[in-house]
Amino acid sequence: MSNPSIVLKEKGKIVLENRPVPDLTDERSVKIAVKKTGICGSDVHYYLHGNCGTFVVKAPMVLGHESSGVIAEVGRLVTNVKVGDKVAIEPGVPSRYSEEYKNGRYNLCPDMAFAATPPYDGTLARYYIMPEDFVYKLPDHVSLEEGALVEPLSVAVHAAKRAGIKYNSNVAVFGAGPVGLLTAGAARALGAANVLVVDIFDTKLELAKNIGATHTYNSLKKGNFDEEIIKLIGDRPDIVLEASGADIAMNNGLNLLKTGGVFVQIGMGKDDVKLPVAQMTQREIDYRGSSRYSQGDYNDAVTMIANGKIDVKQLITHRFKFKDAKTAYDNIIQNGKDVVKTIIDGPEDELAKL
Amino acid sequence: MSNPSIVLKEKGKIVLENRPVPDLTDERSVKIAVKKTGICGSDVHYYLHGNCGTFVVKAPMVLGHESSGVIAEVGRLVTNVKVGDKVAIEPGVPSRYSEEYKNGRYNLCPDMAFAATPPYDGTLARYYIMPEDFVYKLPDHVSLEEGALVEPLSVAVHAAKRAGIKYNSNVAVFGAGPVGLLTAGAARALGAANVLVVDIFDTKLELAKNIGATHTYNSLKKGNFDEEIIKLIGDRPDIVLEASGADIAMNNGLNLLKTGGVFVQIGMGKDDVKLPVAQMTQREIDYRGSSRYSQGDYNDAVTMIANGKIDVKQLITHRFKFKDAKTAYDNIIQNGKDVVKTIIDGPEDELAKL
Amino acid sequence: MSNPSIVLKEKGKIVLENRPVPDLTDERSVKIAVKKTGICGSDVHYYLHGNCGTFVVKAPMVLGHESSGVIAEVGRLVTNVKVGDKVAIEPGVPSRYSEEYKNGRYNLCPDMAFAATPPYDGTLARYYIMPEDFVYKLPDHVSLEEGALVEPLSVAVHAAKRAGIKYNSNVAVFGAGPVGLLTAGAARALGAANVLVVDIFDTKLELAKNIGATHTYNSLKKGNFDEEIIKLIGDRPDIVLEASGADIAMNNGLNLLKTGGVFVQIGMGKDDVKLPVAQMTQREIDYRGSSRYSQGDYNDAVTMIANGKIDVKQLITHRFKFKDAKTAYDNIIQNGKDVVKTIIDGPEDELAKL
Amino acid sequence: MSNPSIVLKEKGKIVLENRPVPDLTDERSVKIAVKKTGICGSDVHYYLHGNCGTFVVKAPMVLGHESSGVIAEVGRLVTNVKVGDKVAIEPGVPSRYSEEYKNGRYNLCPDMAFAATPPYDGTLARYYIMPEDFVYKLPDHVSLEEGALVEPLSVAVHAAKRAGIKYNSNVAVFGAGPVGLLTAGAARALGAANVLVVDIFDTKLELAKNIGATHTYNSLKKGNFDEEIIKLIGDRPDIVLEASGADIAMNNGLNLLKTGGVFVQIGMGKDDVKLPVAQMTQREIDYRGSSRYSQGDYNDAVTMIANGKIDVKQLITHRFKFKDAKTAYDNIIQNGKDVVKTIIDGPEDELAKL
Repeated sequence: MSNPSIVLKEKGKIVLENRPVPDLTDERSVKIAVKKTGICGSDVHYYLHGNCGTFVVKAPMVLGHESSGVIAEVGRLVTNVKVGDKVAIEPGVPSRYSEEYKNGRYNLCPDMAFAATPPYDGTLARYYIMPEDFVYKLPDHVSLEEGALVEPLSVAVHAAKRAGIKYNSNVAVFGAGPVGLLTAGAARALGAANVLVVDIFDTKLELAKNIGATHTYNSLKKGNFDEEIIKLIGDRPDIVLEASGADIAMNNGLNLLKTGGVFVQIGMGKDDVKLPVAQMTQREIDYRGSSRYSQGDYNDAVTMIANGKIDVKQLITHRFKFKDAKTAYDNIIQNGKDVVKTIIDGPEDELAKL
Repeated sequence: MSNPSIVLKEKGKIVLENRPVPDLTDERSVKIAVKKTGICGSDVHYYLHGNCGTFVVKAPMVLGHESSGVIAEVGRLVTNVKVGDKVAIEPGVPSRYSEEYKNGRYNLCPDMAFAATPPYDGTLARYYIMPEDFVYKLPDHVSLEEGALVEPLSVAVHAAKRAGIKYNSNVAVFGAGPVGLLTAGAARALGAANVLVVDIFDTKLELAKNIGATHTYNSLKKGNFDEEIIKLIGDRPDIVLEASGADIAMNNGLNLLKTGGVFVQIGMGKDDVKLPVAQMTQREIDYRGSSRYSQGDYNDAVTMIANGKIDVKQLITHRFKFKDAKTAYDNIIQNGKDVVKTIIDGPEDELAKL
Repeated sequence: MSNPSIVLKEKGKIVLENRPVPDLTDERSVKIAVKKTGICGSDVHYYLHGNCGTFVVKAPMVLGHESSGVIAEVGRLVTNVKVGDKVAIEPGVPSRYSEEYKNGRYNLCPDMAFAATPPYDGTLARYYIMPEDFVYKLPDHVSLEEGALVEPLSVAVHAAKRAGIKYNSNVAVFGAGPVGLLTAGAARALGAANVLVVDIFDTKLELAKNIGATHTYNSLKKGNFDEEIIKLIGDRPDIVLEASGADIAMNNGLNLLKTGGVFVQIGMGKDDVKLPVAQMTQREIDYRGSSRYSQGDYNDAVTMIANGKIDVKQLITHRFKFKDAKTAYDNIIQNGKDVVKTIIDGPEDELAKL
Repeated sequence: MSNPSIVLKEKGKIVLENRPVPDLTDERSVKIAVKKTGICGSDVHYYLHGNCGTFVVKAPMVLGHESSGVIAEVGRLVTNVKVGDKVAIEPGVPSRYSEEYKNGRYNLCPDMAFAATPPYDGTLARYYIMPEDFVYKLPDHVSLEEGALVEPLSVAVHAAKRAGIKYNSNVAVFGAGPVGLLTAGAARALGAANVLVVDIFDTKLELAKNIGATHTYNSLKKGNFDEEIIKLIGDRPDIVLEASGADIAMNNGLNLLKTGGVFVQIGMGKDDVKLPVAQMTQREIDYRGSSRYSQGDYNDAVTMIANGKIDVKQLITHRFKFKDAKTAYDNIIQNGKDVVKTIIDGPEDELAKL
């Protein structure tokens, strides 16, 4: 196999198949030998349901978008990286002509080509092509596994910046899944004085403490929710980030928030949710959606790992070989509760002989 | 009567009674002879229901908070105004020790003393006392009636600033009641290229055109709502201000809004409303509550009228004498549809003899 | 002549010569038949001195960068404009890979290709090639002459936005040359309550009043400068824009400015100038350089003209035919005082026969 | 002595004298028993020259404004602190009616009453009176000496916030005196990735490393200044803070700064300084003065110390008893080079007997 790839043929069917080795697309593009790929909830959703939100899988699609790798070839005009460099891959490339790109909010570009989002193939292959400015050189002391985790950390960094977290902010994060945990860490790195994480599983809250939470709270605990939290962090939080997608978390978060505060929704839940609109108006709350990442976020995420502000490796609970990728997905479906982050290796050499 | 006052004795009972003439409270306070007072929906709500949101009338309370008047007396250290000046009254005084006051968001101060909000008496009296920096001198060519309308215009200015309206913004306003109309005018004064007003009454939409709307749309009209509006203003609006308080308007507004845009909720409706949370997250919408007015808003509103950027007088549909104040309220309850803004005069001289 | 062009062969030598008709560079590029071109001080500087700042003319270069025209041909993927559209040309194209472009400050891109800035040819030719997103469709009622003035108006809009001018700002502009005049107009369009223009020529100050100044002041007048101006606009300005490049204007402007205010330097003067640093520190003044224009400025400038917020035509004092372009430049050198803005037509048909 | 005080009788003459014990001024004021006071350059300037900038000592004045103490008495309405609390004192109280106070920039209030700035007495006394919201409770683990250093740290925090330092900023600080050192520490706490400190003394640069600098550079070193620094921190800094007040440092800093970057002037030097205005304009540099501290800065400074983000104690090189205050000042004048920060104790008990 010259370019072994993990392909979602249709809903419920993942296969390993050979694809042609891709060529550089222009003089500023690079070819990356993909080495580590994390599994995201959206990948699993495509596998189980054949869609994710409004995106529908209509043709076979290579999976994967949380990846790192090593530069294998560079176009003639490339200056940012060179062959052999370890890089994190930012898997969505916007139109360089779009208003959103020019405004620094390219995550909102309607012409975005995003890995493993139909109709675009993902990164779970031997090789992947990117423009040079959407790969980020990793310092020597940052591992390729950490490089694969730059993607979800960038989601967290983006949300934390949307929230306006700054030195001495008082922050609460709802939901201790991978993005919630990384958001807590990013909040701390951005200077928050207190970062409280709320979840219903004590094991996840333990992990939160290692990633950056200064306080945790299990919302199944009896007692007055707001009062207990105010006791812990001294006041209502001036910023709440909601990473669970649960209706009740959104409402608890908005109620808890300080008057005049900022609430950022990251997690996807139901299409429509009842929110306490009257108090949001009277208390002048800023409610902001946050989606993926944009200009500067990947850079900040790489720096955060490189400077030791966050130890993302702690999230990795499972590792699989490339040829076992299907098993990796099935394992999440069967044992989801125990999985925080799964990493799939790049293709083993033996696959080349097939 | 030395200080005739319009008092809400209890739910449903408005009387004219004499109150003691108030004294200056300190050397930076002023005594205002109140001359014109607009009626706000909240006053009517107190009259009909004895409460407004969480504020409950537990003791007799003087009504009124949209007022202008003439300075009758000034404290020893007052420099902003002098006896005889026409002024608009900003009817809420925050604590000067509060964090909100120091941060320029004093509308959120929990210790606010606001006219005609229990337990504080309102402005429908011969005299009212204020600190000198919460009254605003009106230029000679601005009338006292216009001065009374500075209050609702400040609500509009505050919302327009919360929305970040700037030169060339593309704006839609939902609801053409007094605040919606003034918001359209304020949006235009702040430089919006297009200001579209949506309502279900054509008469109100006509008024909107005179106040500052560049386009109007009757939402009862058949046809695809978004498409029709995009035809009118060339694109989805980048800013929506919702002044009706209706669930459907909130949802229509959020759906209509451009990706990455800003939605400001001004109107009060139900406590809880179902909102399209998933798309607000994915499309990174900023939803912001707006309440009353804060640092700088009154100044901007006075300038807007003084410079002829908005003709607020057009809102006045009804005028009543002070002694007929009760009739003014009853008229709104009976003929609400026809009323845009009612103005009550300051007490007539004859009342002094009673 | 298939593509007659006005070429600066070397310092002091302007000739009309034929150049090859340029081809579209890619599928999103357009070919513009150039119709009107304004003369800028930088063009004159190249003519007189062979350089402008650090840019040196080392090879023959087509002059001109303030142009409008008509679309003559479009690439296969172009959607913004079509053949026959009138457009204003934004004459500098940054690298779409640069950090500055992604951050919305592409005027700072080190790889900018700018018309009539060595080694790039300018627009004084029959045809010019641009990417589709750097030309701006003019509405029917906006003339091609107005279209040529979008360039200097964009410089003014950019400076006004750098200054943070907003509704009710109190603004002073120093220097009533073309950019100063347009800055006054842009300031007014952005909502400034007062716009005072300072210059030493009464004729220019008269023009300022027609373009948007609410007040003017001749700085040769006797009397206390600050006091006189405060009398006119009620207070020290909270924003000063300096468009003259004169040392004394910079110092007068900084002294005049309100404590905590913003000063924007637009005009180019000496390399080094003595500034009142101690008071700038103590009074927390923001001093900001402003250069050319960036994301959004051209759009705002076109809207400003289209909506009648500024009448740029008043600046045009001289008009020349294409074949007389050299005379147009010589006229500025000889009679500079009387010239505000000179416009050169696109090439006449008769030139095709040569 | 009931209220022993260190009084500057006139230029060059410091005496210890008794003053009346001050009373609470209102129900929200507190009486502080002053315990530790740092000496600032301005105090020394008053001692040596009888003035500081435009402030002139016309009558005997108590010195000192960098103080901490213990609450000795509280007004009836005080809630922020209680008797016995350790506090840092913010020594300037603005007018609560001023526009600057309402805008969150009260350091610019023209009616500021600032300790040891004529005609206001300073804090070098047994007791000092303040409003409750201008004292800041110190946590148990923060010492009174650290509390005295909150004042200069707040100057640094204010400057760092004026500069817009945020996560991953690339920062250079010129001048390693007390404020420069603390600015480096504050920059690091605010999330700067690199903080380079420039000075001409290696001993100060060593101290800088302990306070928060990631890199240092001795500007007396041979070699190309810009190139050497770019080698150290990877690029031109996007933010430069100038804390030395030297002309050459200002110019070196502006030249070094990245295009589009922010330069903050903190140090006071000559009234007028030649700056590279042409490049500041073309490279769109933001030059911002920074003076003292304002809303939020004291809070952030206390948190910074409490959370261990900066070890301010390292700055203290000299300690004196209250009765030896004059010697403390004389020591700075004679051995200035060796002094970083001098702390004077609160009055000893024995003084009470005098």
